[in-house]
Amino acid sequence: MIRDTPIVNVENLTGEAAAHRASDYDILPLFLNRWSPRSMTGETIEDDALFALFEAARWAPSSFNAQLWRFIIARRQNKEEFDRFVGLLVPGNAVWANRAAVLVVVTSRKLFERNDKPSVTHAFDAGAAWENLALEAARRGLVTHGMEGFDYERARRELGVPDDFDVHAMIAIGKRAPKEQLPEKYQAMEQPNARRPLREIVFEGGFGRTVAGLP
Amino acid sequence: MIRDTPIVNVENLTGEAAAHRASDYDILPLFLNRWSPRSMTGETIEDDALFALFEAARWAPSSFNAQLWRFIIARRQNKEEFDRFVGLLVPGNAVWANRAAVLVVVTSRKLFERNDKPSVTHAFDAGAAWENLALEAARRGLVTHGMEGFDYERARRELGVPDDFDVHAMIAIGKRAPKEQLPEKYQAMEQPNARRPLREIVFEGGFGRTVAGLP
Repeated sequence: MIRDTPIVNVENLTGEAAAHRASDYDILPLFLNRWSPRSMTGETIEDDALFALFEAARWAPSSFNAQLWRFIIARRQNKEEFDRFVGLLVPGNAVWANRAAVLVVVTSRKLFERNDKPSVTHAFDAGAAWENLALEAARRGLVTHGMEGFDYERARRELGVPDDFDVHAMIAIGKRAPKEQLPEKYQAMEQPNARRPLREIVFEGGFGRTVAGLP
Repeated sequence: MIRDTPIVNVENLTGEAAAHRASDYDILPLFLNRWSPRSMTGETIEDDALFALFEAARWAPSSFNAQLWRFIIARRQNKEEFDRFVGLLVPGNAVWANRAAVLVVVTSRKLFERNDKPSVTHAFDAGAAWENLALEAARRGLVTHGMEGFDYERARRELGVPDDFDVHAMIAIGKRAPKEQLPEKYQAMEQPNARRPLREIVFEGGFGRTVAGLP
């Protein structure tokens, strides 16, 4: 199995993550190393690396292990398919995501397959799978960038997504390029972003009840 | 900072993951090591370990970095709060989750905070945060188990979740115990589960179009 990128980003914080992010508690550095660059080279990604990302997604947890997530990909080397996916994006995404190696539309079935009853967690579970994909990519030094800036209805229609599936997001996957090749307005954003403090997202005993001492 | 559990599960497959799971592509072993045991000791988890799980969640990606996820926790040492959370669960979950150290209700805001417009990805993004939490726990040898078997409406009412938030799931977090202390019917399920093949979840160019050569 060939790795087209070195695997160095799991246990050691990358320089750019360290420059922009600090965690209050000890966590796997990979979580901080993963961010969402826009600058990509336009090079293809070898199959073994590409499908490893979906392999990671595959092992995410889901309610009743239903795995209702489905990913539709277009690879840049298939110009017709790739251009159709780029055409779904808003201009502000298309302008940089057209240099991705792969574009992905993430969907999930709204009903369990075993009984056609509604799944309350299908979107939530699909998000867990997406995060595995993003982390495995970060491990390999590859870019992933999730997007909601695209035409959801046209994606459904043009890609034949059945009515019993929801469309959640698109993902650009690619090899990292220097930020200087981005349109100027995106260059300043080409760095890891921050997060709100922990005390704003963790409550205890009831909604809005802050936890004493949380940073 | 004190770690109450050894951190050994990232780069090396655990014995039980190896016994039940195989990946077709090279991925970080942590993805395979994470699974959803039910048997927990009932011991508390030290704050530094507990909040590290939410620290990991905090760094997940979200649309416009909106971070709409909110976690409501109840710790076992606070018996009144913990029992109220256990009381939300269906009996089949309560019977084992009552030995968790912490129970969590996961919610997210349906509207962006900056403009009150609907977020199409808030549930999807919350799922990404949940997976970070689960992976950091697996890294530490701690149990996490996501559940949809609980009373969503009562959770909302009793915990004061505002109308503009969705409730997604509950999570049991705890220290691992031998399976023999579970009720007998759960003992056979106390092992890592499998996944559907990659070819069933990855399509190319359009929904349902399988990728040649995928396992």
